[in-house]
Amino acid sequence: MSLVRVQNFSISLDGFGTGDGQSLDAPFGHAGERLHEWMFATRWGHELLGRPGGTGGIDDAFARLFSVGIGAEIMGSGKFGPPGWHSDPDWHGPWGPNPPFHTPVFVLTHHSRPSLEMDGGTTFHFLDAPPAEALEAARAAAGGLDVRIGGGPSMLRDFLAAGLVDHLHVVVVPILLGRGVRLWDGLEDFDRNYTIETMVSPTGVTHLTFTRTGADG
Amino acid sequence: MSLVRVQNFSISLDGFGTGDGQSLDAPFGHAGERLHEWMFATRWGHELLGRPGGTGGIDDAFARLFSVGIGAEIMGSGKFGPPGWHSDPDWHGPWGPNPPFHTPVFVLTHHSRPSLEMDGGTTFHFLDAPPAEALEAARAAAGGLDVRIGGGPSMLRDFLAAGLVDHLHVVVVPILLGRGVRLWDGLEDFDRNYTIETMVSPTGVTHLTFTRTGADG
Repeated sequence: MSLVRVQNFSISLDGFGTGDGQSLDAPFGHAGERLHEWMFATRWGHELLGRPGGTGGIDDAFARLFSVGIGAEIMGSGKFGPPGWHSDPDWHGPWGPNPPFHTPVFVLTHHSRPSLEMDGGTTFHFLDAPPAEALEAARAAAGGLDVRIGGGPSMLRDFLAAGLVDHLHVVVVPILLGRGVRLWDGLEDFDRNYTIETMVSPTGVTHLTFTRTGADG
Repeated sequence: MSLVRVQNFSISLDGFGTGDGQSLDAPFGHAGERLHEWMFATRWGHELLGRPGGTGGIDDAFARLFSVGIGAEIMGSGKFGPPGWHSDPDWHGPWGPNPPFHTPVFVLTHHSRPSLEMDGGTTFHFLDAPPAEALEAARAAAGGLDVRIGGGPSMLRDFLAAGLVDHLHVVVVPILLGRGVRLWDGLEDFDRNYTIETMVSPTGVTHLTFTRTGADG
């Protein structure tokens, strides 16, 4: 069965999925790289950057699930580029010619444009659609595999609130950002439909998995 | 050395230290007892209620530190009673004749009243003072022992922001309350002066300790 999954979504202890003041040079605003250091420290993170070494424990195990069994991603407009990217017709995302997705990726935006085929199997499609409709498109493109909800926090919250996510992996980093965009706002009792497991890594981050317990789980 | 400590302060995964709609019947509002079930399930919690049994693991170990080495508590007005308690001259707090503190307790309130001696060693003092001044009074009454900051979340946040807390024990309960009073608001970079340790209990709650790394830690 094709599941809807979230992998490696990192938040601060005070719940921010991104910091304040996002820009081209600071895609996570004042958070900098602090929410994702745990990921880049893993063997998987090192491989992404073409480096040897890296940690091989629980952080690496979770990080690698990013692409396992995934046939498509849906991402928010703010992940594809900094505010204003849609006025630049040559903007191809911040990942260079070979983005790390290697599947169709649906970018939710009110500013449509032609699909964009990149190296390595990533094709960006631009879609102005509510969560359920976007999911339908992504499922059709995923070839029976799972669909990953890529964030940022605002669009992820919409998918969670709409009850569309089967498996959610959140990583809590023990820092206090104080400002930015919160993941959990407006999700009262979201936990009631999920089995939650919590695991602490020796690196200090906490991994939480939410697995849907409903009939369709 | 006399430390300023916070023990067993429970918050939801979305950061609320109390729910919405606090009243005499619902001191934690719509959160009910959900933030503290882990505590009442311990051997220590059972002993408090005069019952046998209870869990004996990490939750019990932490719960018992509540009173170990403590010589005084400071609490916020909202912990001493529901909104409006100060207009009832017979209000003695919600704990009955023998409150579980057994030390001097300083209640921060703009409505002063005479000190109140209870059974079992608890004496309530009513104080209209900012955090540092309240701490001075509590320290003087603590006989060289530690001072516990008792909450609720608003007053605790004030003490954290003022840099007055040496040791903070927070328990994250995996529920999403959606509304209430947040602990972490306005504490950007609070973590930078503390060593943070994270431990998951088999019961599903996560214990975090913040130990001050500054010269006075």
